[in-house]
Amino acid sequence: MNRTSFTVKLGKDEKYRNITDLVQKVVKTADLWDGCINIRVKHTTCAIIINEDERGFIDDLFARLDRIAPQSVKENPMGGLNYYRHDDLSLRTQNIEEGTEERVNGHAHVRASFFPKGHVVDVCEGKLDIGRWEQLIFFDFDDIGPRRERTISVSIINGA
Amino acid sequence: MNRTSFTVKLGKDEKYRNITDLVQKVVKTADLWDGCINIRVKHTTCAIIINEDERGFIDDLFARLDRIAPQSVKENPMGGLNYYRHDDLSLRTQNIEEGTEERVNGHAHVRASFFPKGHVVDVCEGKLDIGRWEQLIFFDFDDIGPRRERTISVSIINGA
Amino acid sequence: MNRTSFTVKLGKDEKYRNITDLVQKVVKTADLWDGCINIRVKHTTCAIIINEDERGFIDDLFARLDRIAPQSVKENPMGGLNYYRHDDLSLRTQNIEEGTEERVNGHAHVRASFFPKGHVVDVCEGKLDIGRWEQLIFFDFDDIGPRRERTISVSIINGA
Repeated sequence: MNRTSFTVKLGKDEKYRNITDLVQKVVKTADLWDGCINIRVKHTTCAIIINEDERGFIDDLFARLDRIAPQSVKENPMGGLNYYRHDDLSLRTQNIEEGTEERVNGHAHVRASFFPKGHVVDVCEGKLDIGRWEQLIFFDFDDIGPRRERTISVSIINGA
Repeated sequence: MNRTSFTVKLGKDEKYRNITDLVQKVVKTADLWDGCINIRVKHTTCAIIINEDERGFIDDLFARLDRIAPQSVKENPMGGLNYYRHDDLSLRTQNIEEGTEERVNGHAHVRASFFPKGHVVDVCEGKLDIGRWEQLIFFDFDDIGPRRERTISVSIINGA
Repeated sequence: MNRTSFTVKLGKDEKYRNITDLVQKVVKTADLWDGCINIRVKHTTCAIIINEDERGFIDDLFARLDRIAPQSVKENPMGGLNYYRHDDLSLRTQNIEEGTEERVNGHAHVRASFFPKGHVVDVCEGKLDIGRWEQLIFFDFDDIGPRRERTISVSIINGA
C-alpha cells in the first residue's frame, strides 16, 4: 500500500498550521490522479479540522474552547473547569513514565476529543477534492511548554 | 473512480435535511451491492451528523450550540460570546472578496468545526449499513441571510 | 468484501471501554498485513474517540460534557440545560414505539453528535497504525437505565 507521512512542529505561539499544500504535495509525488486518501494525525492532543484558513475564525474557535475546556493549571485546590484530573499527579496512576516530566495537557486531551483526527478525501484530476474555502488545518492543543514534532500519515486508499 | 455529487439548499427556517435517501439513491444508481462509500460535504460552514431524525433532538442540539457558539452579531463593541472576529471587518484582512458582501457567519464556522464533514459508510446487500435509528443529517450552520446551494460528494471507495 | 462486527455492552457504572485490542484481533483474524480498515459504531447515542486510555482524562471529558449537555431529567417544567425536548413525551410525535418505554437519553444524542462514530485506520505490518498513546475508546452516552448491547462493525477497505 502506498503510504507516507510528514511531520509538523508548531512554534511557541503558533496555534495551528495549514497543511493543505503538504498533503497536496504528497498526492503529486505519489502521482495520484483519481482516487481517495486517508489523512490522519497520530497524537492524542492533536486534530485536523477542515475549515477556512482565516485568523479571525481560529481566534473565535479558541475563545469558545477557552470556555468549554480552559487551559489546565497544575495547582488548583478549589477545582473548577481549569482543573484536570489527568494533570493531578496526586491522583493519577496510569501511563506515568519514570524520569519524564508529565506535561500539563489535560485541556489538550479534552479539546482534541471534540475534533476529527483524520479525513478521507477524494482526489480528482490530481487535486484534493475540497471546496473553495476548505483547508486542512492541523492543531496541537498541547501548548504549555515546548512544542513537539507530530506525525501526520497520508495513505492512498485507492486510485490510479 | 466512481464518484458523483448532489446539492442541497435549506429553506429560510430549515435547520437541517435528512439526506439518507439521497445517498441511498446514489448507491442504487451505482449498482453497488457490497463495498463502502465516502460521503462528504465540501463547505466550511456545513456538517453531516449521523444521528436520529427527530425534531426534538435537533432542537436540543441547537439549544446547546446557542450557548457554546451563539449566533453572530455584526456590531458588538462589548465583545462576548456572540462576537466573532471572523465577522469584524474592521479587523479582518484575509479572504475578503471585492464586490461581495461578507456573510455574518462566524458562529457557523465554529459550529461546523465541532462536527464531522464526512463519513465512510459500508454498503451491504445494496443498502447503507447503518443502525436502525441512524440517519445521515445535513446541517448548514450559515443561517443568516439567504441560504446557499451546497454540494455533497459521494464516492465509491471499493466494492462491486 | 471482508467485514465483521463485535458487540460491546457497558456495565451500569462503566463510562467507556477500550476496544483497541478487539479491533486488533479482527485485523489478526482477517490476516491483514498492510491496508486500511473502517471501524464504526452503529448506534445514535454512541461514539468512538481516539485518545489516551487514562481514567483522569475520561473524568475530565465527562466533567465538561456535564456542563455542555447535562444528563437529561424527564420532568423539568422550568426548562434549563438538563431539559431535552427529545425526552418530553408531551411534545414528541416522531419515532415513538408502542409498548416500549422510551429511554431518557436526550443528553446522549447531543453528546454523541459531537464525537466521531467511526475512523478509517491504516494497518502496517499487521498492526493498527496508531500513535503510542492512541487508543480506540468506545462510549455509550445512553447511561440512564439498563445498558444495551451495541454493535461495532469493522470492514477491510483494502489491503493484503
